[in-house]
Amino acid sequence: MFAATTQIRVRYAETDQMGYVYYGNYAMYYEVGRVEALRQAGFEYKKMEEDGIMMPVMENYTKFHQPGKYDELLSIKVMLKEKPSVKITFYYEITNESGILINEGKTTLVFANKFTGKPCRPPQYLIDLLDPYFSDGAH
Amino acid sequence: MFAATTQIRVRYAETDQMGYVYYGNYAMYYEVGRVEALRQAGFEYKKMEEDGIMMPVMENYTKFHQPGKYDELLSIKVMLKEKPSVKITFYYEITNESGILINEGKTTLVFANKFTGKPCRPPQYLIDLLDPYFSDGAH
Amino acid sequence: MFAATTQIRVRYAETDQMGYVYYGNYAMYYEVGRVEALRQAGFEYKKMEEDGIMMPVMENYTKFHQPGKYDELLSIKVMLKEKPSVKITFYYEITNESGILINEGKTTLVFANKFTGKPCRPPQYLIDLLDPYFSDGAH
Amino acid sequence: MFAATTQIRVRYAETDQMGYVYYGNYAMYYEVGRVEALRQAGFEYKKMEEDGIMMPVMENYTKFHQPGKYDELLSIKVMLKEKPSVKITFYYEITNESGILINEGKTTLVFANKFTGKPCRPPQYLIDLLDPYFSDGAH
Repeated sequence: MFAATTQIRVRYAETDQMGYVYYGNYAMYYEVGRVEALRQAGFEYKKMEEDGIMMPVMENYTKFHQPGKYDELLSIKVMLKEKPSVKITFYYEITNESGILINEGKTTLVFANKFTGKPCRPPQYLIDLLDPYFSDGAH
Repeated sequence: MFAATTQIRVRYAETDQMGYVYYGNYAMYYEVGRVEALRQAGFEYKKMEEDGIMMPVMENYTKFHQPGKYDELLSIKVMLKEKPSVKITFYYEITNESGILINEGKTTLVFANKFTGKPCRPPQYLIDLLDPYFSDGAH
Repeated sequence: MFAATTQIRVRYAETDQMGYVYYGNYAMYYEVGRVEALRQAGFEYKKMEEDGIMMPVMENYTKFHQPGKYDELLSIKVMLKEKPSVKITFYYEITNESGILINEGKTTLVFANKFTGKPCRPPQYLIDLLDPYFSDGAH
Repeated sequence: MFAATTQIRVRYAETDQMGYVYYGNYAMYYEVGRVEALRQAGFEYKKMEEDGIMMPVMENYTKFHQPGKYDELLSIKVMLKEKPSVKITFYYEITNESGILINEGKTTLVFANKFTGKPCRPPQYLIDLLDPYFSDGAH
């Protein structure tokens, strides 16, 4: 398993008149979590996209336990539980400053050729980076 | 079952550099779909919130079949398949101008007292409005 | 002068915890106003961009008179007061359902070649469409 | 004068299909800049709002020099050039990773009582915090 944690400060723009983080903004928090988690592993999403591979989203699921609030410093734990193939699934756990789990989610993306739109394998440097996290210890 | 369809024109703000509707914006489209579907049935979400009942989201699920594109006029079909209780689940099917199903989703919300935050029954006028759609045909 | 009016219903996503439309969302309302105003005149922004001309923004100014509120049907009056050259300036007046002017603004955009990024003349069909609104009546 | 700098990483959600930061998102960047600048000075906007004072925006102006791009780490320099009264004006300069000034702006907000909506003086602790930056050196 691969796991990494990123922090995000809730912006005023992200709240709604209920006084909560608008429910649609968690997908954006997940995006930031994914990108920063991979950056911590040594991978730049931006570079991959420049190299001609993009990652459209296939599925997204969110469970809202408690509301996020303005100005809170949220911790987004991002996990890869399975080795990526043509698809990659990220799992998330968001906790607030009191350490309470407020939100859980899961996103499946596909690697796709930017020009043809066709699904493709992840780039070799990403496979190499992530491989150690999924080795079965049997070497 | 209750069903109603609303149209939304994709805004430039809602696209991303992939040239698609950003995946996080579908939750907002669902919100507009829900509110407009209920308005067509004679219900104003705004009024209910002013009356002291709000509807925080508990769960949201999205399946992305094809990308939405800038300036497309999307049709959001919103369905209630079960009679609402303390919870209410909306189902969505979004089609583009060519009639292609590009996105499906499902959101579960809870009725909650605005002041205590506690779950509560839907307001009687909403129950009365929706009841006919879920009668068992046995009259 | 060219003028056209478009209506926008305020979405829950667009409110903030003050209970108002978040101030940053007016730029998006302006965008919708511009695009729909030109559509009413027979021009499709999308088509122009596909033809290789885009319109990055150079300047934007907003004066906030009164807050926009959730679910209000806002009217966005869009005006062109000067004939477009390499630049085009849109003026806006947003009124709420009570007819009160809540917001005024002004955006200057530039026509630019999508591939070189260089400023360019507006496409001939746009010039032809808008010309009658700026004729001096001296024919 | 008071000045402070904050960094923001451009999110995918914030780009548009031109491949740039959507022009409407700079107002949100300004908001983050303001809040973080004041936090560096020892002031929490959130606390003030909880104490019953909010800050609706009266005017906003932006000059777009160059586009912001995905994943760039932008620096937002926030300045107060005049001592706040009932109104407060923030000035901004946003530079990209190459140190190029890409965006300049200015926002005027008003201090207002959260319950009456009426303009009011800034809270005393904010006056005390900012006063030293605007002393005339004549002590």
